Amino acid sequence: MRSHYCGDLRKEHIGEEITLTGWVHRRRDHGGVIFLDVRDRQGIAQVVFDPEREESFAIANSVRSEFVIEVKGLVRHRPDGTVNSDMPTGEIEVLGLELNILNKAETPPFPLDDHQKVGEDVRLRHRYIDLRRPEMQEKLRFRSKVSNAIRNYLDDNGFLDIETPILNRATPEGARDFLVPSRTHEGAFFALPQSPQLFKQLLMVSGFDRYYQIAKCFRDEDLRADRQPEFTQIDIETSFMNEEEIMGMTETMIRKLFLELKGVDLGDFPRMPYSEAMQRFGSDKPDLRFAMELVDVADLMAEIEFKVFAGPAKDPKGRVAALKVPGGAKLTRKNIDDYTKFVSIYGAKGLAWIKVNEIEKGVEGLQSPIIKFLGNDVTMAIMERLGAENGDLVFFGADKEKIVSEALGALRIKVGEDLEMSQCEWAPLWVVDFPMFEETSDGGLTALHHPFTAPSCTAEELKADPLSALSRAYDMVLNGCELGGGSIRIHNQEMQAQVLEILGISDEEADDKFGFLLNALKYGAPPHGGLAFGLDRLIMLMTGTDSIREVIAFPKTQSASCMMTNAPGEVSAAQLRELNIKLRKTP
Amino acid sequence: MRSHYCGDLRKEHIGEEITLTGWVHRRRDHGGVIFLDVRDRQGIAQVVFDPEREESFAIANSVRSEFVIEVKGLVRHRPDGTVNSDMPTGEIEVLGLELNILNKAETPPFPLDDHQKVGEDVRLRHRYIDLRRPEMQEKLRFRSKVSNAIRNYLDDNGFLDIETPILNRATPEGARDFLVPSRTHEGAFFALPQSPQLFKQLLMVSGFDRYYQIAKCFRDEDLRADRQPEFTQIDIETSFMNEEEIMGMTETMIRKLFLELKGVDLGDFPRMPYSEAMQRFGSDKPDLRFAMELVDVADLMAEIEFKVFAGPAKDPKGRVAALKVPGGAKLTRKNIDDYTKFVSIYGAKGLAWIKVNEIEKGVEGLQSPIIKFLGNDVTMAIMERLGAENGDLVFFGADKEKIVSEALGALRIKVGEDLEMSQCEWAPLWVVDFPMFEETSDGGLTALHHPFTAPSCTAEELKADPLSALSRAYDMVLNGCELGGGSIRIHNQEMQAQVLEILGISDEEADDKFGFLLNALKYGAPPHGGLAFGLDRLIMLMTGTDSIREVIAFPKTQSASCMMTNAPGEVSAAQLRELNIKLRKTP
Repeated sequence: MRSHYCGDLRKEHIGEEITLTGWVHRRRDHGGVIFLDVRDRQGIAQVVFDPEREESFAIANSVRSEFVIEVKGLVRHRPDGTVNSDMPTGEIEVLGLELNILNKAETPPFPLDDHQKVGEDVRLRHRYIDLRRPEMQEKLRFRSKVSNAIRNYLDDNGFLDIETPILNRATPEGARDFLVPSRTHEGAFFALPQSPQLFKQLLMVSGFDRYYQIAKCFRDEDLRADRQPEFTQIDIETSFMNEEEIMGMTETMIRKLFLELKGVDLGDFPRMPYSEAMQRFGSDKPDLRFAMELVDVADLMAEIEFKVFAGPAKDPKGRVAALKVPGGAKLTRKNIDDYTKFVSIYGAKGLAWIKVNEIEKGVEGLQSPIIKFLGNDVTMAIMERLGAENGDLVFFGADKEKIVSEALGALRIKVGEDLEMSQCEWAPLWVVDFPMFEETSDGGLTALHHPFTAPSCTAEELKADPLSALSRAYDMVLNGCELGGGSIRIHNQEMQAQVLEILGISDEEADDKFGFLLNALKYGAPPHGGLAFGLDRLIMLMTGTDSIREVIAFPKTQSASCMMTNAPGEVSAAQLRELNIKLRKTP
Repeated sequence: MRSHYCGDLRKEHIGEEITLTGWVHRRRDHGGVIFLDVRDRQGIAQVVFDPEREESFAIANSVRSEFVIEVKGLVRHRPDGTVNSDMPTGEIEVLGLELNILNKAETPPFPLDDHQKVGEDVRLRHRYIDLRRPEMQEKLRFRSKVSNAIRNYLDDNGFLDIETPILNRATPEGARDFLVPSRTHEGAFFALPQSPQLFKQLLMVSGFDRYYQIAKCFRDEDLRADRQPEFTQIDIETSFMNEEEIMGMTETMIRKLFLELKGVDLGDFPRMPYSEAMQRFGSDKPDLRFAMELVDVADLMAEIEFKVFAGPAKDPKGRVAALKVPGGAKLTRKNIDDYTKFVSIYGAKGLAWIKVNEIEKGVEGLQSPIIKFLGNDVTMAIMERLGAENGDLVFFGADKEKIVSEALGALRIKVGEDLEMSQCEWAPLWVVDFPMFEETSDGGLTALHHPFTAPSCTAEELKADPLSALSRAYDMVLNGCELGGGSIRIHNQEMQAQVLEILGISDEEADDKFGFLLNALKYGAPPHGGLAFGLDRLIMLMTGTDSIREVIAFPKTQSASCMMTNAPGEVSAAQLRELNIKLRKTP
């Protein structure tokens, strides 16, 4: 119906008779003429109706915001002094010749350009209106571009897009699975996939060699701000490639994406072992935009009287670390109190600090409530190790290793953001050499990635000292977010059995959960590995969005409901009967 | 790890030292040397090991079918007389220099090239092995190509790939929905989508203008041979385009697909009104590869004594039609009996016939048990109308219109296939001008497409005579299969209310099921329409596959279970408790 998109009109269209369709974004009466800002997917064009053309002027006079209209008109220069250089179409306007109302609109529940005044719940309830906002249009359009660019890159590299099932096998161990009762198999359930992991490995056993899928995944867990019950994964698996090749290929993919869609060259991604990341940044996904590092000072603290430091310093599972904040001395007592509260989220019981005012004066030039507990010598040794300079602030953490790393790791980013200390816009890296296992609270072992991750040692070495074993896993991190992660998988049946034994997974449980994969490994599984990226998170990062709900067309709230459709909803007793289930309590 | 794919080796590689990885497809010992056929995704290469290289010969001697190996070798001409022109790699062979076993394999449950000897259940149970068969590799690779070509076509045409939710609102009216109990909302359920219909309409209300998605859809119905509980839809919706434009654009897409991936030009698709399709072919998806047509003869039969014909001929809801089969006189009594059984599937109570042996002799030249009931004049009048010639066979159907059309429509295709009467390989068309409604068995009305389909008349005309109203729907048909279907949707709230009223859907039910859409129509919905193609069916047609299970990597059986994973499975009482449900009967 249209000849041009509103947002695409430019100087070169001047003199053309065109047809636009779209929504009335704004109507203004000014100097006896009516201005309609007409909006479509591409942007906004200004259309002018003058009283000489009575019929269209009368219609223009009757339209309201969000009416859907069709306009025939003539593109012309805006009069001198009315050019709007903020608008891509700001040099031109359209003289309206004919106007046709395609659909009326009630007054929308909130004005599009005033959406911030209404709560997110109102916007989510009327999502179809919220999505009209140019920012939302742009984000979802960008998402579509990213999906397409990724698909084409993978297709060009010989990857096959193969769909794996959504209705999967439920098992009694399937925590966090969404379940679907089967109508035809009484008492049995399907589970929605947390990821296509097992299927993509089977596709490698089948010899497809290179697989990808932009796949919906599901996790029934309590939602944090950046989680959704259903999310989208760029899922990749290859055979006969080692970790270097897989990392190289996917790094190229992400670099190409940033270059083509954002004009940003991310450069070569550095590699960092997990142990180094935890040591220096207190995180397995360090945000390298900030230079600050955690510095271990346990050796300096071990002999002091003050138990708060000396205890963790002497505990093999403890950690005592310092974080030097350049220029942090300007932080107020209130700031520091707030940070103390902040680290308590991670279990830290306090947040000791030293302000460096005049380091040339020794401890006299420092300000801190803890120097008296540390003693002058230890204090100055710490200052020396940190290379403290005037104006710095030093924070301390002393506790179990995990608590200190997490608390100071998070504090590092928080302070870095608050003080605007980032040194670059984009800081990608690969974290590698993860441990195979970590200890659970009950003293058992759990897989740091998943039980199909290959170790970088032999089965014998693995058995002898599982906690020292490293895996062939790799995570791609960007600005402190895990963009994607993967590993070389176990393709050898004996190795797989060894790992399951170490994890204390019984043969019965293993058989129940993934017996078909264990079986498949017997029949000629190739060496294989892969990776999965979180598409939602990637789009968030690329578009600079804080909330995952802003990059998903129809998101769920934190209570896993949809404000627009009121999902989930009630069903009839007959439906439940057919599915062989009933409610625990009748409503 | 490899330098080349096995299947890609050609004459031009002769003299090169290469590395292959793959599976041992076959091992033969012949004349003191060992031949390994090594298979990968691209095909098979023959590798020769001679005893001079002791180490690799010994390994070659130890490998078995489906071992995973890595071979270094030299590409050379096959010796004279051993060139295999059936194999793409048949001109060359690889002299094996080094051989490395990457993984062993137990004897597979069935030999790949003898898969037909085992039941489909064995193949499905070991799907990862079944998928190694070159045909299966080729089908899924083709599917990936089709998905990619479609995405690129739509992307090039300004369509945005927007994901819609899988966890949707369940309603008490949601027959055939798969349900997902909510953990966080006691007693409430999500439903898996039968299609993204409502969401894609909302995206139009949001102004996205052009949307597509290759979307998973779900239907919990008893499965026929060509159905799966989850299936894939190429889902398309546009704003400000009329049916001509939508049909034109998607026709171009399908033509381009066939041209690029099969080298077939489908030509311009003819259009046929629904009524004509039913009249001439007894089907709303006529298979135009066959020329035979149904010919109405009720007017000739109305006055005869024989009630079997005269009854339906006089019944306004009856139909009496003939199907002339050129060359059908050669069919045996047994053939005709089989066809009689075949039409009984569609409710036909019998299958009358006349063989045309010597038409120049009048009724004397005909052979049939029914001439005596028809009388000579009527018989000859029918022969004349049909243009019957010697060697023809004429079948008759007389019953309710629906039964006759369906039975003779199906018979037409069955006979056409049996007698190999197809006149071309590909016969596409658009079926248009569908009725808005059809009568249900209880005398009510149901939407032939869905309740959001726009009529081609005004709301007043619709109300006055709903059964005569036509819709703005269109189906794309290829070789008697519905490839896709769609319509212009209702964008006007009053029209939507009118349609729902005619369908007898109460305000309460409408509000419960799709109140958010009805609401959205109030706030400026643009004229819009779209279409959805069944991807599985498209791939079946393009690859000439009979079973939908052959074009899906991990399909379900007709009882909606997965033989490989044993889905659906049992879950624990704790899981059910968390979901606030229990089993009807404890197992």
